Amino acid sequence: MMADPFRTTRLVEFHDTDMAGIMHFASFFHYMESAEHELLRSTGFSIFSNFEGQALSFPRVAVSCQFQSPVCCEQLLEIAIQITRLGRKSITYDFAFAHEDREVAQGQMTCVCCRVEPGQPLVSVAIPAVLVEKLKQYVV
Amino acid sequence: MMADPFRTTRLVEFHDTDMAGIMHFASFFHYMESAEHELLRSTGFSIFSNFEGQALSFPRVAVSCQFQSPVCCEQLLEIAIQITRLGRKSITYDFAFAHEDREVAQGQMTCVCCRVEPGQPLVSVAIPAVLVEKLKQYVV
Amino acid sequence: MMADPFRTTRLVEFHDTDMAGIMHFASFFHYMESAEHELLRSTGFSIFSNFEGQALSFPRVAVSCQFQSPVCCEQLLEIAIQITRLGRKSITYDFAFAHEDREVAQGQMTCVCCRVEPGQPLVSVAIPAVLVEKLKQYVV
Amino acid sequence: MMADPFRTTRLVEFHDTDMAGIMHFASFFHYMESAEHELLRSTGFSIFSNFEGQALSFPRVAVSCQFQSPVCCEQLLEIAIQITRLGRKSITYDFAFAHEDREVAQGQMTCVCCRVEPGQPLVSVAIPAVLVEKLKQYVV
Repeated sequence: MMADPFRTTRLVEFHDTDMAGIMHFASFFHYMESAEHELLRSTGFSIFSNFEGQALSFPRVAVSCQFQSPVCCEQLLEIAIQITRLGRKSITYDFAFAHEDREVAQGQMTCVCCRVEPGQPLVSVAIPAVLVEKLKQYVV
Repeated sequence: MMADPFRTTRLVEFHDTDMAGIMHFASFFHYMESAEHELLRSTGFSIFSNFEGQALSFPRVAVSCQFQSPVCCEQLLEIAIQITRLGRKSITYDFAFAHEDREVAQGQMTCVCCRVEPGQPLVSVAIPAVLVEKLKQYVV
Repeated sequence: MMADPFRTTRLVEFHDTDMAGIMHFASFFHYMESAEHELLRSTGFSIFSNFEGQALSFPRVAVSCQFQSPVCCEQLLEIAIQITRLGRKSITYDFAFAHEDREVAQGQMTCVCCRVEPGQPLVSVAIPAVLVEKLKQYVV
Repeated sequence: MMADPFRTTRLVEFHDTDMAGIMHFASFFHYMESAEHELLRSTGFSIFSNFEGQALSFPRVAVSCQFQSPVCCEQLLEIAIQITRLGRKSITYDFAFAHEDREVAQGQMTCVCCRVEPGQPLVSVAIPAVLVEKLKQYVV
C-alpha cells in the first residue's frame, strides 16, 4: 500500500531570492524545516516537545538537497513529505518541491530524537511510541 | 574632542543579495549586530557575557536604518560604529556603512543590558562599570 | 473615519529564533516585507510589477522597529499594516505585531516607487494611480 | 601527492544560532558558499565572472552536509575546502568544518559552470581552462 505524503505549500519569499533572480539554494533547508514542523504539529507534537516530563528535540545529523529547476519570488511551492526511514531513535524525511507540476528540488533530512536538559549535552532517546504511531502513515 | 569610531569591514555575501541584484535591506541588521559583537569582543566582553557570576545580554529595544545607495555582492563595506548615547542600563549605537567613500547606509540600535537567568524573564541591570569605561572612547 | 488595517498572520519559524530562545530582531523585517507583499498582491500588484510596459519595484529608503516583548518559535504573530503616508512616489507602512493581544513589536518601512531597467540605475516614478486608489483604504 | 586544502576561518555569528543555543544547520550552507567564493576570488575569479565577454555563474545542482558536533556563537570555525571532482563543466567541493581540532561538520557542493544571459535560461558550458588550471591544486 502506497502511503500518502504529508502535503503543504509555501510562496517563495523575496528575502529568500538572490542576485541570480531565483530562490537561494540554502533557503530550501529553511522551508524543509518549517514543513517538517508543520507535520509534527499535525501529530500533536512540536519541534521542542515536552513528553512525559522530558524535553525532546530533533537535531539534524545529515541533510541534502538536489536542485532540478529554479523557482522565483512569489511562486507557489508544493511540498510533499515522506518518511524513508523510521528508526528507533531517528527519522529520515524526504521532501519533494514542485511548482505547477514542474519538479524544483528534492531534499532529505535525518534527525535524531534527543532529550534536552539545560547545560547538559544532548542524549539520544527512543522516539515516543505515540509519535511513532502517528508518523507511520508517512513511511514509504 | 572628537571620538574615533570603532572600525571594521565586511564583504557583502552572496546569500545576502536579493533578486534586485543588491544586498537585501534586512541583512544590514545582521552586519550591524556582528560589528557590535566585534566591538564588544575588543573590550573583552561578548554578547553573552558572564560578569561577576551573572549572565548578561543586550537585547534590542529599537533599531533603524536609512539606505543611501545600493551595495553589491563581494563589495567591501567599511563599517564605523559610534555610541550616541551611553545610559546607565542602555547603549545606543550608530553604524555608518560606506563603500569606497560612497555612503551606503546609516543604522541605529538601542540595546538594554539585562541579566539572563534560565526560565526567568530578562531583568534590566546597570552596565558593568568596567564595560562603561571601555565603551566611553566611542561616545560622541 | 478610521481605516481598517490590512491583516495577516504568521507562525514564528525555528530558523528565525536565536540562542536567546526568541525570534531574532532582524527577522521582523523579513516578516514585514512578506506581509507588505501580501498586501500588494491583494491589490493585484506584486513587488516586481509590470505596469504599462515598465517594471516597477519598491526599494526601501528607511526602516525601523521597536520591540515591546519577545515572541517564541511556533507562536502566532498577528500583523496589522497601515499606511501612515502615501506620497506621490513613496509609501510609508506601519506594522503592528501582536501575539494573543500582547504587543510584540511595531515596525515602519518607507519605500519609493522606482522604474527598473536592466543595467540602469533605479529611477523614482509616480505610483500608478490604480495602485494609489487601492492603497488609500489603508491610509490612516 | 596529497593536495593542500584551501583554508579559511569564520566566527559563528549570533544571527546564525537558533533557540537550541547552537549554530543552525542551514547556516552551514551560507558559510560553505562564502568560503567557496573566497577560494574563487583567490584564483582571480568570482561567483559572477566575466570571462572572454560572457558572464559565468556556478549554480548548485546538489548539496549535502553531515553534522558531527554542535558549534556555538563566536566560536571559530576552521574551514578546509578540497575538490573531490573537477569535471569539464562541474565542480564538486568538500568542506570540512572544525573547531579547535574537534570535527563539527562535513559538507559537499556540486556546481555547474553556466553562461548567464539576461532573460535567457542558464546554459552549461565548459569551465574556462585558466580556472581549471588554478583549481587543480585543490583536487584530491
